[in-house]
Amino acid sequence: MHAIEKILAKAAGKDHVTTGEIVNCKVDLAGINDLYLQTIRSFYEMGGKKVFDPGKIVIFLDHYAPASTIMQADNQKQFREFAWEQGIDKLMDVDQGVCHQVLADKGLVYPGMVLVVTDSHTTTHGAFGAFGTGVGATDLATIMITGHLWFRVPEIVRINLEGELPKGVYAKDIILKVIGTLGADYAVYKAVEFTGPVLKQLSVSERMALCNMTTEMGAKTSYIQPDEITLAYLKDRVKGDYEIFHTDPGYQYAAEHTFDVSDLKPQVAAPHSVDNVHDITEYIGRPVQQAFLGTCTGGRVQDLAVAAQILKGKKVHPRTRFIVVPASKAVFLEAMEKGYIQTLVEAGATFVTPGCAACLGTHQGMLASGETCITASSRNFPGRMGHTKAEIFIGSPAAVAAAALEGKIVDPAKYLD
Amino acid sequence: MHAIEKILAKAAGKDHVTTGEIVNCKVDLAGINDLYLQTIRSFYEMGGKKVFDPGKIVIFLDHYAPASTIMQADNQKQFREFAWEQGIDKLMDVDQGVCHQVLADKGLVYPGMVLVVTDSHTTTHGAFGAFGTGVGATDLATIMITGHLWFRVPEIVRINLEGELPKGVYAKDIILKVIGTLGADYAVYKAVEFTGPVLKQLSVSERMALCNMTTEMGAKTSYIQPDEITLAYLKDRVKGDYEIFHTDPGYQYAAEHTFDVSDLKPQVAAPHSVDNVHDITEYIGRPVQQAFLGTCTGGRVQDLAVAAQILKGKKVHPRTRFIVVPASKAVFLEAMEKGYIQTLVEAGATFVTPGCAACLGTHQGMLASGETCITASSRNFPGRMGHTKAEIFIGSPAAVAAAALEGKIVDPAKYLD
Repeated sequence: MHAIEKILAKAAGKDHVTTGEIVNCKVDLAGINDLYLQTIRSFYEMGGKKVFDPGKIVIFLDHYAPASTIMQADNQKQFREFAWEQGIDKLMDVDQGVCHQVLADKGLVYPGMVLVVTDSHTTTHGAFGAFGTGVGATDLATIMITGHLWFRVPEIVRINLEGELPKGVYAKDIILKVIGTLGADYAVYKAVEFTGPVLKQLSVSERMALCNMTTEMGAKTSYIQPDEITLAYLKDRVKGDYEIFHTDPGYQYAAEHTFDVSDLKPQVAAPHSVDNVHDITEYIGRPVQQAFLGTCTGGRVQDLAVAAQILKGKKVHPRTRFIVVPASKAVFLEAMEKGYIQTLVEAGATFVTPGCAACLGTHQGMLASGETCITASSRNFPGRMGHTKAEIFIGSPAAVAAAALEGKIVDPAKYLD
Repeated sequence: MHAIEKILAKAAGKDHVTTGEIVNCKVDLAGINDLYLQTIRSFYEMGGKKVFDPGKIVIFLDHYAPASTIMQADNQKQFREFAWEQGIDKLMDVDQGVCHQVLADKGLVYPGMVLVVTDSHTTTHGAFGAFGTGVGATDLATIMITGHLWFRVPEIVRINLEGELPKGVYAKDIILKVIGTLGADYAVYKAVEFTGPVLKQLSVSERMALCNMTTEMGAKTSYIQPDEITLAYLKDRVKGDYEIFHTDPGYQYAAEHTFDVSDLKPQVAAPHSVDNVHDITEYIGRPVQQAFLGTCTGGRVQDLAVAAQILKGKKVHPRTRFIVVPASKAVFLEAMEKGYIQTLVEAGATFVTPGCAACLGTHQGMLASGETCITASSRNFPGRMGHTKAEIFIGSPAAVAAAALEGKIVDPAKYLD
């Protein structure tokens, strides 16, 4: 069996599972965010009274942090009241940041767990060897009542990453290349595992970016085998014990793909599809009115660090807004301690409350008609970050910061040592 | 003549003006904010082609910093394009903060000037001995075309502040007491001058809070005679020369009121009117779901400092959101340098982009139905900060921070040395 199958088997109380089998799994942690008030309504509509285990539910008020409309405020109030009423003490209020980063910061994610959140980017947690997946309101309400959810054991695809990452090329560029090559619907309901020597060159932060965007190719979940890099990250964060599963030798993947990253250029997903991926060099000089650095894809300390490196002592282009959103409160505090926030704000960045901000087109940093944005987030379909007549390029945090500096798309490599 | 009259006389090219006279004044600086796109429309409708002097116009994108709706984004885009087209280089984009603080930070306000902004709190600049006033779109468009605007020379009222400020009592408490005593319509189209020994106990920051809220009693403008405290503040900020005017001895005020602050308790304006002012002791124990620290009234470094002093090493009450919005980028940077932001965020504050935020009920930090907020901002009518069924108490930054800590209204004095 694959490690992912072993996770599901254990959660289902079985010795063995196979691809395509429907299994009913115990969920270790279930999260709801403030886009999904319907979850609470469904919980009651389905006859729910008390949640199965208040300690295994997390509420995240991250998509509207803090509320900018009366409806958002009213929805968040209902979430808080539900949490208090149900004894859910993991209420991550509007000060905390994006759910996926908060889960990592607070040691709530660990290898071998089954983690379900009403957020498609829950694939992020494959970076920790967890089974993480996103669901809608009805499925999450089911978990709130029963503690379980069914899954079809996914086909598992292996993406093998060979070679050595060049200067100015990041996990974001790798995953864009993968999605561009395989297509945005390649991995629908599949699990995507990353393997290969490149992983040793990637921090946990970078691995999270990699796994995060597998959902953009339709993946149900994602996986990286925990190693010493994972364990070092988890060491001071995760309180309890956990089990690390290993894939059996000779396991037959549904498919295997190898990418050699040694010659990889910085990539962009050009408008209007995440798999419309090109070398950034094809778009050099394209003016951008907004550069957006943040979200669960690209708002970690390491991302802010590279932006600060590029912008230190310089000024953001006068015709470009540089929106910077730390992924979480912990990221914000660490980035302040390291001076990155100061550097970026002095350079002209607009600093935004940790959270999802403009990533999903409903909050701080929206695009006007006719504007072009380069973003470290994950989606670029029309209207994703505001007006349907805006154009969105997705790139690495370095590409975003370099574009903020020059007011146009450039190759970030020239700013990096 | 009064110093204010001398300012207007000079701006009108006259030797003498008297109360009630209509004078056509040269405007030294005119500001438009992103609530007032109509100003640009009016400019063109009134036949405007080029603004009278691009160097004397400032555009502030502060009310939606950064844009959270497509309409806000589109409006801001039109502002930027207008600025670029007209050669207006004082374009304060979404990274800069609230207009009034930005004007002070950047040394754009100085004694003796005539300053007109499409923002009612332009009375703030009386703290510098400037004639500052807020207007609507048509008046501002008139200035953009002609460089002039007419005023009726206002009656001038003197508020004399005697005594010594007790611990835990601030300019905010004074101005609330004044408004509560005289009424929200007391000073309609009047100028309000502050005098007396208490001014020597007030920093420029505190004086700005004092003058800022005279608009809440209807004042056309406000005034504090520049002194060594003013000059020390302006010294490294204002580049050019300026003239300080002095009121002639024996000048007859339209009215004079003396307030002795020695026994003043911390004040609150209770729902739903700014002149519904009481000693805070009358509301001790009232739960608050949100504490809001920020805006042109209460978001300066000194305000963040007192909040940090109260919350250092402590935690915001779990059922209260503490929204912290520095008034400007300069405030944000200085408050980071001094560690206040770190302290507040560690304590549980939700940090928001410098700007107006929820003060006017259109952006970050909105109130839900049935919630109660204590705010360091300036207005508490129904719906001002969100739902019309929310209740708003206005208090000093210390009162706001203490309420954030305890989750209810308390006397902040106990937390202050």
